[in-house]
Amino acid sequence: MSEIIKLAQGSGGFETSRLISEIFSEKLGNEYLNRGEDAAVLDVSGKIAYSTDSFVVEPIIFPGGDIGKLSVCGTVNDLAMMGARPMYLTIGFILEEGLCVDTLREIVSSIAECAKEAQVKIVAADTKVVPGNGGMYINTSGIGIIPDGRDCRTENIKDGDKILISRSIGDHHAAIMSARMGIENDIKSDVNPVNHQVEALFEAGVNIRVMRDVTRGGLGTVLNELSEKSSVGMVLCEEDIPVAPTTASLCKILGLDIFYMGNEGTFIAIIPSEDADVALGTLPNARIIGECSGGKVIVKNSFGGERVLPVLYGEGLPRIC
Amino acid sequence: MSEIIKLAQGSGGFETSRLISEIFSEKLGNEYLNRGEDAAVLDVSGKIAYSTDSFVVEPIIFPGGDIGKLSVCGTVNDLAMMGARPMYLTIGFILEEGLCVDTLREIVSSIAECAKEAQVKIVAADTKVVPGNGGMYINTSGIGIIPDGRDCRTENIKDGDKILISRSIGDHHAAIMSARMGIENDIKSDVNPVNHQVEALFEAGVNIRVMRDVTRGGLGTVLNELSEKSSVGMVLCEEDIPVAPTTASLCKILGLDIFYMGNEGTFIAIIPSEDADVALGTLPNARIIGECSGGKVIVKNSFGGERVLPVLYGEGLPRIC
Repeated sequence: MSEIIKLAQGSGGFETSRLISEIFSEKLGNEYLNRGEDAAVLDVSGKIAYSTDSFVVEPIIFPGGDIGKLSVCGTVNDLAMMGARPMYLTIGFILEEGLCVDTLREIVSSIAECAKEAQVKIVAADTKVVPGNGGMYINTSGIGIIPDGRDCRTENIKDGDKILISRSIGDHHAAIMSARMGIENDIKSDVNPVNHQVEALFEAGVNIRVMRDVTRGGLGTVLNELSEKSSVGMVLCEEDIPVAPTTASLCKILGLDIFYMGNEGTFIAIIPSEDADVALGTLPNARIIGECSGGKVIVKNSFGGERVLPVLYGEGLPRIC
Repeated sequence: MSEIIKLAQGSGGFETSRLISEIFSEKLGNEYLNRGEDAAVLDVSGKIAYSTDSFVVEPIIFPGGDIGKLSVCGTVNDLAMMGARPMYLTIGFILEEGLCVDTLREIVSSIAECAKEAQVKIVAADTKVVPGNGGMYINTSGIGIIPDGRDCRTENIKDGDKILISRSIGDHHAAIMSARMGIENDIKSDVNPVNHQVEALFEAGVNIRVMRDVTRGGLGTVLNELSEKSSVGMVLCEEDIPVAPTTASLCKILGLDIFYMGNEGTFIAIIPSEDADVALGTLPNARIIGECSGGKVIVKNSFGGERVLPVLYGEGLPRIC
């Protein structure tokens, strides 16, 4: 039988320190964490973005990722959406008793790998153990540096701006749902750090008004939030919204609305019309899906029909992130 | 029947935003959170301390405090222990389905009150809902500014330094244990932000070598960690360790070892011998409990007996913080 997590490992004493040295230190150890102080000491100057997110996804390992990768990407992407370069993360583990130690190792490896890819350092961490059924929750917080001259805010949106989406939507939601329902297909979560894509847009000179990662609540909810705060409407062309064929099929079969499906490595950027070509040239998978206009969020279909797109009501898919 | 939290409130859509506007915004709303962006934008310059902690205490409301106050104090105190002035917190809620909305309101009020007392701003937040039995978990992270000239590190400890404790120990542990066992007494958790006490020590000119809040694992574990990292031993005088009479009685009855009892508003400071009087004059409840000497952590009793004090082995009290 494989080793499992026990309540004693959350005591703060010998068992906790053994858990940390045997499982966390090898993969996550660095000059900050290895000090074992109550907080990391960092030199930071200027404007920063500061964010937090908790992750409760079920199952904890899913096609294309796991709760570890998700928890790094979630915070990295939130920071990137503010125009910040993500620099430092903290990570808080809440482990349920009965969690397989091998599973935990796999998730910790995945955290380390994703942090490396996103070029962020995990500078502080905490571990708690609770009774349960072998699951886990993760919280991450993060700090990013906002370079001079970047100012991504909802207020910047202007009538006539284009809405760019960085890639096809729905894959994370579809992958989680498939995993839960035992449906076999090749859909993989889009979970990925998007900070390098955002940097590429800035470097190409794209004048990004505002960005949002299209997570919980999906495109419908995110666009409504932006529209409400900016008092500018959005008009989407349904046929321009990129959806992978397998994901589109799953939506049809299960009656899912693509506009409310969560993603974890997909963002929208509102950009001036004149910057659209440069942006599309910079991000090969990106598409322009509509423009800012009017006062509501509206979807136009290919037959000329129009419908108002509201925010997500009700449950959506619980524990998608 | 009172209103309870439902899974739909974690969807990220309308229900989540209603939960936020109806419960969180009133008490926690400020110029950062009200923007509703993916991350807060802050101006920060210089050396900062950055920390995280998750809180899984059971019961969530206990004599002297609750999980909300605890989660603010935990991170505020970690930052203060690095010599930092705590400035900004993030807060991540994981709510279990079935949690009483009135209980949540009470805890959110307590967070707001404690943040005000500690003079920190909550600048980013996140809410998730999971299946469960009406409990909740909270993660906080925090940023503090370290003023020039402050340098609290384990390496600073010198042979002959005094060990100061800020107040009597064991109350948080005793309060949680009493609440769980249904024992009626007047013991209240010591949960409190200690940053103002730390500032007072610095202002009085005390040359603090290093500090630690005496949380999970208790005094025995904390002193061993410091001793191991600094390679300097600690000699404690058992009779000088302050313990409130009711807490001492509970320890006797239940066979608890005061050296492994967790606290949430109590810290030790290692200070030069010549600064002891000033420190004691600054913090009226503080006591000198021993000094740094030799290579092990040793407790001397009033009869001249000595014993080596190890770190906590085994469970201690699960979910004490």
